[in-house]
Amino acid sequence: MTQNIYDTAEFFEGYSQMARSVHGLDGAPEWPALQALIPALAGSRVVDLGCGFGWFCRWAEAQGAAQVLGLDVSQNMLDRACATTPAGPIAYQRADLENLTLPAAAYDLAYSSLTLHYIERLPELFATIYRALTPGGHFVFSAEHPIYTAPAQPGFVQDATGRRVWPLNQYAVEGPRTTDWLAKGVIKQHRTLGTYLNQLIAAGFTITHVQEWAPTAEQLAAQPALDEERDRPMMVLVAATR
Amino acid sequence: MTQNIYDTAEFFEGYSQMARSVHGLDGAPEWPALQALIPALAGSRVVDLGCGFGWFCRWAEAQGAAQVLGLDVSQNMLDRACATTPAGPIAYQRADLENLTLPAAAYDLAYSSLTLHYIERLPELFATIYRALTPGGHFVFSAEHPIYTAPAQPGFVQDATGRRVWPLNQYAVEGPRTTDWLAKGVIKQHRTLGTYLNQLIAAGFTITHVQEWAPTAEQLAAQPALDEERDRPMMVLVAATR
Repeated sequence: MTQNIYDTAEFFEGYSQMARSVHGLDGAPEWPALQALIPALAGSRVVDLGCGFGWFCRWAEAQGAAQVLGLDVSQNMLDRACATTPAGPIAYQRADLENLTLPAAAYDLAYSSLTLHYIERLPELFATIYRALTPGGHFVFSAEHPIYTAPAQPGFVQDATGRRVWPLNQYAVEGPRTTDWLAKGVIKQHRTLGTYLNQLIAAGFTITHVQEWAPTAEQLAAQPALDEERDRPMMVLVAATR
Repeated sequence: MTQNIYDTAEFFEGYSQMARSVHGLDGAPEWPALQALIPALAGSRVVDLGCGFGWFCRWAEAQGAAQVLGLDVSQNMLDRACATTPAGPIAYQRADLENLTLPAAAYDLAYSSLTLHYIERLPELFATIYRALTPGGHFVFSAEHPIYTAPAQPGFVQDATGRRVWPLNQYAVEGPRTTDWLAKGVIKQHRTLGTYLNQLIAAGFTITHVQEWAPTAEQLAAQPALDEERDRPMMVLVAATR
Protein backbone atom coordinates (compact mmCIF):
# COMPACT_ATOMS: atom_id res chain seq x y z
CA MET A 1 0.00 0.00 0.00
CA THR A 2 1.12 3.54 -0.73
CA GLN A 3 2.53 5.44 2.21
CA ASN A 4 -0.52 7.26 3.58
CA ILE A 5 1.29 10.41 4.63
CA TYR A 6 -1.83 12.55 4.25
CA ASP A 7 -3.31 10.84 7.30
CA THR A 8 -0.44 11.81 9.60
CA ALA A 9 -1.46 14.82 11.66
CA GLU A 10 1.59 16.95 10.90
CA PHE A 11 1.37 16.48 7.14
CA PHE A 12 -2.39 16.90 7.02
CA GLU A 13 -2.25 20.14 8.97
CA GLY A 14 0.46 21.54 6.73
CA TYR A 15 -1.27 20.41 3.56
CA SER A 16 -4.59 21.87 4.73
CA GLN A 17 -2.99 25.30 4.92
CA MET A 18 -1.64 25.31 1.35
CA ALA A 19 -3.28 27.70 -1.12
CA ARG A 20 -4.58 24.78 -3.17
CA SER A 21 -6.28 23.36 -0.08
CA VAL A 22 -7.80 26.64 1.08
CA HIS A 23 -8.73 28.09 -2.31
CA GLY A 24 -9.19 24.87 -4.30
CA LEU A 25 -8.40 24.75 -8.00
CA ASP A 26 -7.93 28.52 -8.19
CA GLY A 27 -5.19 28.24 -5.57
CA ALA A 28 -3.18 25.94 -7.86
CA PRO A 29 -1.16 27.94 -10.38
CA GLU A 30 -1.01 25.01 -12.83
CA TRP A 31 -4.80 24.66 -12.90
CA PRO A 32 -5.47 26.90 -15.94
CA ALA A 33 -2.98 24.85 -17.98
CA LEU A 34 -4.36 21.55 -16.69
CA GLN A 35 -7.95 22.65 -17.26
CA ALA A 36 -7.10 23.42 -20.89
CA LEU A 37 -6.35 19.70 -21.38
CA ILE A 38 -9.71 18.50 -20.08
CA PRO A 39 -12.43 17.69 -22.63
CA ALA A 40 -16.02 18.91 -22.35
CA LEU A 41 -17.61 17.07 -19.43
CA ALA A 42 -21.36 17.50 -20.00
CA GLY A 43 -23.01 14.12 -19.48
CA SER A 44 -19.69 12.35 -18.96
CA ARG A 45 -18.46 9.88 -16.37
CA VAL A 46 -15.34 10.93 -14.49
CA VAL A 47 -12.95 9.21 -12.10
CA ASP A 48 -10.49 11.28 -10.04
CA LEU A 49 -7.50 9.31 -8.75
CA GLY A 50 -6.22 11.04 -5.62
CA CYS A 51 -9.23 13.36 -5.21
CA GLY A 52 -8.10 14.95 -1.93
CA PHE A 53 -10.68 17.41 -0.66
CA GLY A 54 -12.85 16.87 -3.76
CA TRP A 55 -12.28 20.22 -5.44
CA PHE A 56 -11.94 18.70 -8.90
CA CYS A 57 -14.93 16.38 -8.39
CA ARG A 58 -17.13 19.35 -7.55
CA TRP A 59 -15.77 21.30 -10.51
CA ALA A 60 -16.52 18.34 -12.80
CA GLU A 61 -20.07 18.22 -11.48
CA ALA A 62 -20.41 21.95 -12.14
CA GLN A 63 -19.30 21.27 -15.74
CA GLY A 64 -22.19 18.89 -16.13
CA ALA A 65 -20.55 15.52 -15.50
CA ALA A 66 -23.24 12.88 -15.02
CA GLN A 67 -21.23 10.73 -12.63
CA VAL A 68 -18.05 11.46 -10.68
CA LEU A 69 -16.06 9.03 -8.57
CA GLY A 70 -13.39 10.46 -6.26
CA LEU A 71 -10.78 8.02 -4.97
CA ASP A 72 -8.23 8.66 -2.27
CA VAL A 73 -6.12 6.69 0.19
CA SER A 74 -6.53 9.31 2.91
CA GLN A 75 -9.52 9.02 5.20
CA ASN A 76 -8.85 12.52 6.52
CA MET A 77 -9.19 13.97 3.05
CA LEU A 78 -12.23 11.90 2.13
CA ASP A 79 -13.96 12.92 5.35
CA ARG A 80 -13.57 16.58 4.49
CA ALA A 81 -14.50 15.93 0.83
CA CYS A 82 -17.73 14.27 1.92
CA ALA A 83 -18.50 17.01 4.42
CA THR A 84 -18.22 19.70 1.74
CA THR A 85 -20.06 17.91 -1.09
CA PRO A 86 -23.86 17.98 -1.29
CA ALA A 87 -25.77 14.88 -2.35
CA GLY A 88 -25.65 14.41 -6.12
CA PRO A 89 -23.63 12.67 -8.80
CA ILE A 90 -20.36 12.64 -6.81
CA ALA A 91 -19.32 9.55 -4.86
CA TYR A 92 -16.16 9.18 -2.82
CA GLN A 93 -14.41 5.94 -2.07
CA ARG A 94 -11.29 5.04 -0.17
CA ALA A 95 -8.85 3.22 -2.43
CA ASP A 96 -5.22 2.20 -2.58
CA LEU A 97 -4.13 3.10 -6.10
CA GLU A 98 -1.41 0.45 -5.90
CA ASN A 99 -4.13 -2.20 -6.05
CA LEU A 100 -7.01 -0.52 -7.79
CA THR A 101 -9.78 -2.25 -9.66
CA LEU A 102 -12.23 -0.32 -11.79
CA PRO A 103 -15.07 -1.48 -14.04
CA ALA A 104 -14.22 -1.79 -17.75
CA ALA A 105 -15.05 1.01 -20.21
CA ALA A 106 -16.91 2.89 -17.47
CA TYR A 107 -15.35 6.38 -17.67
CA ASP A 108 -14.89 9.10 -20.26
CA LEU A 109 -12.23 10.91 -18.27
CA ALA A 110 -9.65 9.71 -15.77
CA TYR A 111 -8.03 12.59 -13.91
CA SER A 112 -5.23 12.68 -11.39
CA SER A 113 -3.59 15.68 -9.76
CA LEU A 114 -0.15 15.39 -8.13
CA THR A 115 -0.67 11.80 -7.05
CA LEU A 116 1.15 9.48 -9.47
CA HIS A 117 4.63 10.29 -8.14
CA TYR A 118 3.60 8.40 -4.99
CA ILE A 119 2.75 5.23 -6.94
CA GLU A 120 5.18 2.34 -7.15
CA ARG A 121 3.27 0.05 -9.48
CA LEU A 122 2.57 2.64 -12.15
CA PRO A 123 2.41 0.30 -15.19
CA GLU A 124 -0.32 -1.70 -13.43
CA LEU A 125 -2.26 1.47 -12.59
CA PHE A 126 -1.96 2.77 -16.18
CA ALA A 127 -3.30 -0.57 -17.44
CA THR A 128 -6.22 -0.35 -14.99
CA ILE A 129 -7.02 3.20 -16.13
CA TYR A 130 -6.79 2.24 -19.79
CA ARG A 131 -9.28 -0.60 -19.34
CA ALA A 132 -11.60 1.63 -17.30
CA LEU A 133 -11.84 4.24 -20.07
CA THR A 134 -14.22 4.13 -23.00
CA PRO A 135 -12.55 3.98 -26.45
CA GLY A 136 -11.57 7.56 -27.20
CA GLY A 137 -11.67 8.35 -23.49
CA HIS A 138 -9.22 10.82 -21.97
CA PHE A 139 -6.58 10.53 -19.26
CA VAL A 140 -5.29 13.85 -17.94
CA PHE A 141 -2.86 14.08 -15.05
CA SER A 142 -0.29 16.19 -13.31
CA ALA A 143 2.65 14.77 -11.39
CA GLU A 144 5.74 16.13 -9.76
CA HIS A 145 8.28 16.55 -12.55
CA PRO A 146 11.20 14.09 -12.51
CA ILE A 147 13.58 17.06 -12.46
CA TYR A 148 11.92 17.96 -9.17
CA THR A 149 11.94 14.48 -7.66
CA ALA A 150 15.42 13.38 -8.79
CA PRO A 151 17.96 15.26 -6.66
CA ALA A 152 19.58 13.91 -3.55
CA GLN A 153 19.17 17.40 -2.06
CA PRO A 154 16.09 18.96 -3.67
CA GLY A 155 16.20 22.69 -3.07
CA PHE A 156 17.58 25.70 -4.92
CA VAL A 157 21.17 26.71 -4.25
CA GLN A 158 23.34 29.55 -5.49
CA ASP A 159 26.18 28.97 -7.90
CA ALA A 160 29.57 30.69 -7.65
CA THR A 161 28.18 33.76 -9.39
CA GLY A 162 25.24 33.99 -6.99
CA ARG A 163 22.77 32.73 -9.55
CA ARG A 164 19.94 30.42 -8.49
CA VAL A 165 20.36 26.87 -9.73
CA TRP A 166 18.54 23.60 -9.14
CA PRO A 167 21.13 20.98 -8.10
CA LEU A 168 20.08 18.15 -10.39
CA ASN A 169 21.61 14.74 -9.99
CA GLN A 170 20.70 11.02 -10.10
CA TYR A 171 18.05 11.77 -12.72
CA ALA A 172 18.47 8.34 -14.33
CA VAL A 173 18.42 6.54 -10.98
CA GLU A 174 14.77 5.55 -10.67
CA GLY A 175 13.24 4.50 -7.40
CA PRO A 176 12.11 5.91 -4.07
CA ARG A 177 13.14 9.33 -2.76
CA THR A 178 12.59 10.24 0.86
CA THR A 179 12.13 13.95 1.47
CA ASP A 180 10.98 16.16 4.28
CA TRP A 181 8.02 18.13 2.98
CA LEU A 182 5.38 19.15 5.51
CA ALA A 183 6.46 16.08 7.47
CA LYS A 184 9.59 14.02 7.77
CA GLY A 185 10.08 10.95 5.59
CA VAL A 186 7.67 11.56 2.72
CA ILE A 187 8.34 8.84 0.13
CA LYS A 188 8.03 9.62 -3.57
CA GLN A 189 8.78 7.39 -6.53
CA HIS A 190 11.20 8.99 -8.94
CA ARG A 191 11.08 7.93 -12.58
CA THR A 192 12.22 9.74 -15.71
CA LEU A 193 9.76 11.59 -17.89
CA GLY A 194 10.58 9.09 -20.63
CA THR A 195 9.50 6.28 -18.32
CA TYR A 196 6.15 7.95 -17.59
CA LEU A 197 5.51 8.35 -21.31
CA ASN A 198 6.75 4.90 -22.33
CA GLN A 199 4.60 3.27 -19.64
CA LEU A 200 1.57 5.14 -20.96
CA ILE A 201 2.36 4.03 -24.51
CA ALA A 202 2.91 0.44 -23.35
CA ALA A 203 -0.53 0.51 -21.69
CA GLY A 204 -2.04 1.46 -25.05
CA PHE A 205 -2.42 5.22 -24.67
CA THR A 206 -1.74 7.81 -27.36
CA ILE A 207 0.09 10.82 -25.95
CA THR A 208 -1.62 14.06 -26.97
CA HIS A 209 0.12 16.70 -24.83
CA VAL A 210 3.09 17.01 -22.48
CA GLN A 211 3.56 20.26 -20.62
CA GLU A 212 6.38 20.98 -18.22
CA TRP A 213 4.52 23.61 -16.31
CA ALA A 214 5.83 27.16 -15.96
CA PRO A 215 3.93 30.32 -15.06
CA THR A 216 2.53 32.67 -17.68
CA ALA A 217 3.68 36.30 -17.82
CA GLU A 218 0.41 37.30 -16.12
CA GLN A 219 0.94 34.80 -13.31
CA LEU A 220 4.51 36.00 -12.83
CA ALA A 221 3.35 39.59 -12.57
CA ALA A 222 0.76 38.63 -9.96
CA GLN A 223 2.99 36.19 -8.05
CA PRO A 224 6.69 37.06 -8.53
CA ALA A 225 7.70 34.10 -6.36
CA LEU A 226 6.67 31.81 -9.21
CA ASP A 227 9.79 32.95 -11.08
CA GLU A 228 11.71 29.97 -9.74
CA GLU A 229 9.37 27.66 -11.63
CA ARG A 230 11.01 28.97 -14.80
CA ASP A 231 14.38 27.65 -13.64
CA ARG A 232 13.16 24.08 -13.19
CA PRO A 233 9.71 22.58 -13.66
CA MET A 234 8.05 21.29 -10.51
CA MET A 235 5.18 19.67 -12.36
CA VAL A 236 4.48 17.90 -15.61
CA LEU A 237 1.00 17.85 -17.14
CA VAL A 238 0.14 15.00 -19.50
CA ALA A 239 -2.88 14.30 -21.68
CA ALA A 240 -3.45 10.96 -23.41
CA THR A 241 -6.31 9.16 -25.08
CA ARG A 242 -7.42 5.55 -25.18
CA MET B 1 20.33 29.52 -42.30
CA THR B 2 21.61 27.47 -39.39
CA GLN B 3 24.96 28.52 -38.00
CA ASN B 4 27.41 26.31 -39.92
CA ILE B 5 29.85 25.80 -37.06
CA TYR B 6 31.05 22.47 -38.45
CA ASP B 7 32.75 24.32 -41.30
CA THR B 8 34.91 26.46 -39.03
CA ALA B 9 38.39 24.98 -38.85
CA GLU B 10 38.66 24.90 -35.05
CA PHE B 11 35.33 23.16 -34.54
CA PHE B 12 35.82 20.72 -37.40
CA GLU B 13 39.21 19.67 -36.11
CA GLY B 14 37.91 19.13 -32.61
CA TYR B 15 34.83 17.29 -33.81
CA SER B 16 36.92 15.08 -36.09
CA GLN B 17 38.83 13.82 -33.06
CA MET B 18 35.77 12.76 -31.07
CA ALA B 19 35.22 9.04 -30.57
CA ARG B 20 32.03 9.15 -32.62
CA SER B 21 33.94 10.70 -35.51
CA VAL B 22 36.88 8.30 -35.37
CA HIS B 23 34.99 5.11 -34.56
CA GLY B 24 31.61 5.93 -36.08
CA LEU B 25 28.41 4.58 -34.57
CA ASP B 26 30.32 2.27 -32.22
CA GLY B 27 32.04 5.34 -30.75
CA ALA B 28 28.67 6.80 -29.70
CA PRO B 29 27.50 5.33 -26.39
CA GLU B 30 23.84 6.07 -27.16
CA TRP B 31 23.96 4.14 -30.44
CA PRO B 32 22.77 0.76 -29.09
CA ALA B 33 19.69 2.44 -27.58
CA LEU B 34 19.06 4.48 -30.72
CA GLN B 35 19.57 1.46 -32.97
CA ALA B 36 16.91 -0.42 -30.99
CA LEU B 37 14.35 2.19 -32.14
CA ILE B 38 15.10 1.75 -35.84
CA PRO B 39 12.82 -0.54 -37.87
CA ALA B 40 14.09 -3.21 -40.28
CA LEU B 41 15.62 -1.41 -43.25
CA ALA B 42 15.77 -4.07 -45.97
CA GLY B 43 14.47 -2.51 -49.19
CA SER B 44 13.59 0.76 -47.49
CA ARG B 45 14.22 4.39 -48.37
CA VAL B 46 16.03 6.42 -45.74
CA VAL B 47 16.80 10.09 -45.24
CA ASP B 48 19.41 11.16 -42.66
CA LEU B 49 19.09 14.79 -41.53
CA GLY B 50 22.51 15.96 -40.39
CA CYS B 51 24.43 12.98 -41.75
CA GLY B 52 27.90 14.26 -40.86
CA PHE B 53 30.57 11.84 -42.04
CA GLY B 54 27.94 9.40 -43.32
CA TRP B 55 28.38 6.67 -40.71
CA PHE B 56 24.64 6.08 -40.35
CA CYS B 57 24.06 6.19 -44.12
CA ARG B 58 26.63 3.45 -44.65
CA TRP B 59 25.15 1.42 -41.77
CA ALA B 60 21.67 1.76 -43.33
CA GLU B 61 23.06 0.53 -46.66
CA ALA B 62 24.63 -2.45 -44.87
CA GLN B 63 21.18 -3.21 -43.40
CA GLY B 64 19.79 -3.47 -46.91
CA ALA B 65 18.29 -0.03 -47.43
CA ALA B 66 17.46 0.45 -51.12
CA GLN B 67 18.05 4.19 -51.16
CA VAL B 68 19.74 6.49 -48.63
CA LEU B 69 19.93 10.27 -48.77
CA GLY B 70 22.35 12.00 -46.42
CA LEU B 71 21.80 15.71 -45.84
CA ASP B 72 24.12 18.11 -44.06
CA VAL B 73 24.84 21.83 -43.97
CA SER B 74 28.59 21.27 -43.63
CA GLN B 75 30.59 20.96 -46.83
CA ASN B 76 33.58 19.72 -44.83
CA MET B 77 31.55 16.82 -43.48
CA LEU B 78 29.95 15.99 -46.81
CA ASP B 79 33.34 15.99 -48.52
CA ARG B 80 34.61 13.40 -46.10
CA ALA B 81 31.35 11.43 -46.29
CA CYS B 82 31.63 11.25 -50.07
CA ALA B 83 35.31 10.32 -49.95
CA THR B 84 34.58 7.36 -47.65
CA THR B 85 31.44 6.04 -49.38
CA PRO B 86 31.67 3.76 -52.41
CA ALA B 87 29.25 4.18 -55.31
CA GLY B 88 25.89 2.63 -54.50
CA PRO B 89 22.52 3.54 -53.07
CA ILE B 90 23.80 6.40 -50.90
CA ALA B 91 23.59 10.00 -52.11
CA TYR B 92 24.73 13.05 -50.19
CA GLN B 93 23.37 16.53 -50.59
CA ARG B 94 24.13 19.82 -48.96
CA ALA B 95 21.02 21.22 -47.31
CA ASP B 96 19.98 23.85 -44.81
CA LEU B 97 17.46 22.07 -42.59
CA GLU B 98 15.85 25.42 -41.75
CA ASN B 99 14.52 25.56 -45.30
CA LEU B 100 14.33 21.96 -46.38
CA THR B 101 12.09 20.59 -49.09
CA LEU B 102 11.65 16.85 -49.59
CA PRO B 103 9.45 14.87 -51.96
CA ALA B 104 6.14 13.66 -50.51
CA ALA B 105 5.76 10.11 -49.15
CA ALA B 106 9.25 9.25 -50.39
CA TYR B 107 10.88 7.74 -47.28
CA ASP B 108 10.22 4.89 -44.89
CA LEU B 109 12.61 6.23 -42.25
CA ALA B 110 13.74 9.72 -41.38
CA TYR B 111 16.71 9.71 -39.02
CA SER B 112 18.56 12.50 -37.28
CA SER B 113 21.41 12.29 -34.80
CA LEU B 114 22.25 15.23 -32.53
CA THR B 115 21.18 17.85 -35.04
CA LEU B 116 17.72 19.14 -34.14
CA HIS B 117 18.92 21.24 -31.20
CA TYR B 118 20.56 23.51 -33.78
CA ILE B 119 17.27 24.10 -35.62
CA GLU B 120 15.25 27.26 -35.05
CA ARG B 121 12.22 26.49 -37.21
CA LEU B 122 11.54 23.04 -35.81
CA PRO B 123 7.75 22.93 -36.40
CA GLU B 124 8.35 23.61 -40.09
CA LEU B 125 11.02 20.87 -40.27
CA PHE B 126 8.75 18.36 -38.47
CA ALA B 127 5.97 19.15 -40.99
CA THR B 128 8.40 18.60 -43.87
CA ILE B 129 9.54 15.27 -42.44
CA TYR B 130 5.95 14.15 -41.83
CA ARG B 131 5.00 14.85 -45.46
CA ALA B 132 8.15 13.13 -46.73
CA LEU B 133 7.36 9.88 -44.90
CA THR B 134 5.12 7.13 -46.20
CA PRO B 135 2.04 6.40 -44.04
CA GLY B 136 3.33 4.23 -41.21
CA GLY B 137 6.84 5.56 -41.82
CA HIS B 138 9.22 6.09 -38.91
CA PHE B 139 11.01 9.12 -37.55
CA VAL B 140 13.82 8.37 -35.11
CA PHE B 141 16.08 11.05 -33.71
CA SER B 142 18.44 12.00 -30.94
CA ALA B 143 18.94 15.55 -29.73
CA GLU B 144 20.73 17.21 -26.88
CA HIS B 145 18.41 16.94 -23.89
CA PRO B 146 16.78 20.19 -22.76
CA ILE B 147 18.24 19.61 -19.30
CA TYR B 148 21.62 19.78 -21.01
CA THR B 149 20.92 22.84 -23.14
CA ALA B 150 19.02 24.92 -20.56
CA PRO B 151 21.58 26.20 -18.04
CA ALA B 152 23.22 29.58 -18.18
CA GLN B 153 26.44 27.83 -17.11
CA PRO B 154 26.27 24.26 -18.43
CA GLY B 155 28.84 22.20 -16.60
CA PHE B 156 28.87 20.06 -13.46
CA VAL B 157 29.65 21.76 -10.16
CA GLN B 158 30.02 20.48 -6.62
CA ASP B 159 27.44 21.23 -3.98
CA ALA B 160 28.25 22.13 -0.37
CA THR B 161 28.69 18.44 0.47
CA GLY B 162 31.07 17.88 -2.44
CA ARG B 163 28.51 16.00 -4.45
CA ARG B 164 28.36 16.47 -8.21
CA VAL B 165 25.30 18.40 -9.38
CA TRP B 166 24.13 19.81 -12.69
CA PRO B 167 23.27 23.50 -12.16
CA LEU B 168 19.91 23.59 -13.89
CA ASN B 169 18.19 26.89 -14.49
CA GLN B 170 16.12 28.75 -17.11
CA TYR B 171 14.63 25.44 -18.25
CA ALA B 172 11.35 27.09 -19.27
CA VAL B 173 13.10 29.95 -21.06
CA GLU B 174 13.17 28.72 -24.64
CA GLY B 175 15.45 30.23 -27.25
CA PRO B 176 19.09 30.35 -28.30
CA ARG B 177 21.96 29.39 -26.02
CA THR B 178 25.51 30.32 -26.90
CA THR B 179 28.13 27.97 -25.54
CA ASP B 180 31.81 27.32 -26.04
CA TRP B 181 32.14 23.70 -27.16
CA LEU B 182 35.05 22.83 -29.44
CA ALA B 183 34.86 26.45 -30.61
CA LYS B 184 33.60 29.71 -29.16
CA GLY B 185 30.06 30.88 -29.79
CA VAL B 186 28.27 27.66 -30.73
CA ILE B 187 24.57 28.49 -30.94
CA LYS B 188 21.98 25.91 -29.88
CA GLN B 189 18.22 26.27 -29.66
CA HIS B 190 16.87 25.34 -26.24
CA ARG B 191 13.29 24.13 -25.99
CA THR B 192 11.62 21.99 -23.36
CA LEU B 193 11.10 18.27 -23.90
CA GLY B 194 7.37 18.97 -23.82
CA THR B 195 7.80 21.38 -26.72
CA TYR B 196 9.68 18.79 -28.80
CA LEU B 197 6.89 16.28 -28.20
CA ASN B 198 4.00 18.70 -28.69
CA GLN B 199 5.52 19.94 -31.96
CA LEU B 200 5.79 16.34 -33.18
CA ILE B 201 2.16 15.70 -32.21
CA ALA B 202 1.07 18.95 -33.89
CA ALA B 203 2.81 17.82 -37.09
CA GLY B 204 0.72 14.64 -37.03
CA PHE B 205 3.18 12.17 -35.50
CA THR B 206 2.34 9.49 -32.96
CA ILE B 207 5.00 9.26 -30.26
CA THR B 208 6.14 5.66 -29.78
CA HIS B 209 9.19 6.01 -27.51
CA VAL B 210 11.00 8.66 -25.48
CA GLN B 211 14.31 7.75 -23.88
CA GLU B 212 16.41 10.08 -21.80
CA TRP B 213 19.63 8.30 -22.46
CA ALA B 214 21.77 6.90 -19.66
CA PRO B 215 24.47 4.22 -19.81
CA THR B 216 23.77 0.56 -19.11
CA ALA B 217 25.58 -1.23 -16.28
CA GLU B 218 27.85 -2.84 -18.88
CA GLN B 219 28.70 0.51 -20.43
CA LEU B 220 29.43 1.97 -16.99
CA ALA B 221 31.76 -0.89 -16.18
CA ALA B 222 33.63 -0.38 -19.46
CA GLN B 223 33.61 3.45 -19.32
CA PRO B 224 33.33 4.70 -15.72
CA ALA B 225 33.37 8.32 -16.94
CA LEU B 226 29.84 7.77 -18.26
CA ASP B 227 28.64 7.82 -14.66
CA GLU B 228 27.90 11.53 -14.91
CA GLU B 229 25.27 10.77 -17.56
CA ARG B 230 23.23 9.21 -14.75
CA ASP B 231 23.11 12.53 -12.94
CA ARG B 232 21.60 14.42 -15.86
CA PRO B 233 20.72 13.24 -19.36
CA MET B 234 22.78 14.76 -22.17
CA MET B 235 20.63 13.26 -24.90
CA VAL B 236 17.03 12.38 -25.57
CA LEU B 237 16.09 9.68 -28.10
CA VAL B 238 12.64 9.85 -29.66
CA ALA B 239 10.75 7.51 -31.99
CA ALA B 240 7.52 8.48 -33.73
CA THR B 241 5.43 7.21 -36.61
CA ARG B 242 3.45 8.90 -39.33
